[in-house]
Amino acid sequence: MSIIVQKYGGTSVADVEHIKSVAQRLCDTQDRGNQVVAVISAMGNSTDRLLRMAHEISADPPERELDMLFSTGERISVALLAMAISELGHEAISLSGAQAGIHTTTSHTRARITDIDSRRLSETLDSGKIVLVAGFQGISPDEDITTLGRGGSDTTAVALAGALRADECEIYTDVEGVFSADPNLVPGAVKLDAVSYEEMLEMAASGAEVLMLRSVEYAQRYGIPLRVRSSFSDDPGTLVKEEDEKMEKAVVSAITHTENESKLTLLRVPDKPGIAATVFGALADAEVNVDMIIQNVSEQGTTDISFTVVQDELPAAQQALDRICDELGTAYIIGEQMGKVSIVGAGMKSYPGVAARMFRALADHDINIEMISTSSIKVSCVIERAQVEKAVRVLHEAFSLEE
Amino acid sequence: MSIIVQKYGGTSVADVEHIKSVAQRLCDTQDRGNQVVAVISAMGNSTDRLLRMAHEISADPPERELDMLFSTGERISVALLAMAISELGHEAISLSGAQAGIHTTTSHTRARITDIDSRRLSETLDSGKIVLVAGFQGISPDEDITTLGRGGSDTTAVALAGALRADECEIYTDVEGVFSADPNLVPGAVKLDAVSYEEMLEMAASGAEVLMLRSVEYAQRYGIPLRVRSSFSDDPGTLVKEEDEKMEKAVVSAITHTENESKLTLLRVPDKPGIAATVFGALADAEVNVDMIIQNVSEQGTTDISFTVVQDELPAAQQALDRICDELGTAYIIGEQMGKVSIVGAGMKSYPGVAARMFRALADHDINIEMISTSSIKVSCVIERAQVEKAVRVLHEAFSLEE
Repeated sequence: MSIIVQKYGGTSVADVEHIKSVAQRLCDTQDRGNQVVAVISAMGNSTDRLLRMAHEISADPPERELDMLFSTGERISVALLAMAISELGHEAISLSGAQAGIHTTTSHTRARITDIDSRRLSETLDSGKIVLVAGFQGISPDEDITTLGRGGSDTTAVALAGALRADECEIYTDVEGVFSADPNLVPGAVKLDAVSYEEMLEMAASGAEVLMLRSVEYAQRYGIPLRVRSSFSDDPGTLVKEEDEKMEKAVVSAITHTENESKLTLLRVPDKPGIAATVFGALADAEVNVDMIIQNVSEQGTTDISFTVVQDELPAAQQALDRICDELGTAYIIGEQMGKVSIVGAGMKSYPGVAARMFRALADHDINIEMISTSSIKVSCVIERAQVEKAVRVLHEAFSLEE
Repeated sequence: MSIIVQKYGGTSVADVEHIKSVAQRLCDTQDRGNQVVAVISAMGNSTDRLLRMAHEISADPPERELDMLFSTGERISVALLAMAISELGHEAISLSGAQAGIHTTTSHTRARITDIDSRRLSETLDSGKIVLVAGFQGISPDEDITTLGRGGSDTTAVALAGALRADECEIYTDVEGVFSADPNLVPGAVKLDAVSYEEMLEMAASGAEVLMLRSVEYAQRYGIPLRVRSSFSDDPGTLVKEEDEKMEKAVVSAITHTENESKLTLLRVPDKPGIAATVFGALADAEVNVDMIIQNVSEQGTTDISFTVVQDELPAAQQALDRICDELGTAYIIGEQMGKVSIVGAGMKSYPGVAARMFRALADHDINIEMISTSSIKVSCVIERAQVEKAVRVLHEAFSLEE
């Protein structure tokens, strides 16, 4: 008998009718001879409603209490879903994160799972019940309720799948799967049947929003096949799994992009040891997340250092640089309206010239490349934000991803 | 340092403004040098909203899942209240029933408290924090969430007060305290400063709705003084405590009433052993709650048995009787529109003639008494429902309760 873990996001349980339809899907999965665990998010935008009330009371509410507050949303979802399943003549039981044995760190609102005690889960599955777990939450060593932060329900599902050695973890969402590019930008974008963990990690890191980086890392660590699919259709979606021999290795699988980057360039920095450590140490102290870093080769004893940050963090980054520029005897310039376009593909490793083809395609359409960064299965280019959408279409065509 | 347990009902935390005002009251109580525990109900009618969703899904939802669902309401209240207290510069921590160590039976939706492990509560109080406990809920031996049924938050407060050996348990509600009669019926009704546990028990059992019977029983068992007061004023309310020498023993403290009773009379039942057991056994099997039972003295080998039930349960009672009347060779008649008026007073024990004064006052106003039942500190009369309001006013005046 297979163990299947399914995760349903807020849009999949937005109201009573949606809850009934998820219940039917879970019963069908059990009827096909599977043991079924489902991880459920809070209904629609109910978490926003709770946050609004909290902010009417305090601009900066204690995080422990935010967790007590937010964790109720998923509990409401699982209880209602259990009722809907019972109405269909199947047996289900709802569990909070704590009841499901999800132990976490004490970092409220952004806790990490430290351990899963799956005894109650396994016993309940063996008794023939569908198990519904409130997503996004766990319990700390102090026996306080914690939440896992953004994408927490995906993480819950993957972690439970790992603990139960599940055969597959299905992430139900409101899109059909992982696409070769954002279908809103590229009408010819195609759904990918399968991608490797490495590809999915690079895609998540370079702008694909369908899966959070953290849940892909978990799935890879525990070797759990992840399937991303829509709760509104029967399409099998996209399977994310270990790269294997049978998997077709596309040179380029997908084009990803972001449109919220800013670029900073430190000019004529003295080219001596410890400079980069000073600069990025100051940024880390200011809690600025730096994405891409480029240092050009030295010329006459000085060098230029460029890096990108999310635009929201630009003011904090500027403050940090202002403090150290005098000391370093340097100045900096800003490119505020930047974006990033990336090509990702596991086949890239064994095909030379892929990056050159990308640069040529962009150049042919007068798109200037400001920064370049590569990994073994990804090439990213920072460009003017206004040109990002065109760049995505150009690259999707250049690598013939429509077929 | 005194330990004070306060309980706030749904109307006291109906919205963000009310929550802020309860926060202020809790901070003031701590500032007066007390250790403070507060038990909080769900906001306003939020439980009704959850129940409505459940009923859209199932006419008969599993009770375990109703408990998972309902218990979220009180958790939202305590989390928001903790934020409001933090905003006032005091420290508070919210606890679910399970975190507060409230262990219950497994009877979902109507569990009973079996044990309270107050270690975490005591440690948190000793660290100088205000402790906020989600009312109405606990945890079963199976580690499932349970709820305590109607009046459950009052019960939580009294039980915690008992476990902590609190100096007082204050029940905040939307009325000023316990009155000599329902002020809606009797404009001259006065608030009572103090009543004994026994009086309060009789009053709760005979129609006073301000406190649930069960929480008064708990308070009496643990000897915890209960204070009923309004969260919208500074009036000290009504103190419910052990009867003592200093307490003024009013012959009659209050007039209580109900307007939802029905009367059934079994006619000419054979007067032999086992008949009453057969009748009330059949009613118990049908889960009908019988209130007053009267059996007249025997005459010519037969007797009449009368009893009252809440009108809602009349159909079930009739079905039960229909099944046994043939067997017993008897028939029954119904008085559907009945009510009950009672006088309650601890001083009654040592004053003869109180019941006679009650009957005389009713007779003088042409109110016919259908059934009578007495305890050492209470006399109840079942009368026509249409006459209940007049009877309450007549008795309030007859025993000079306006003063």
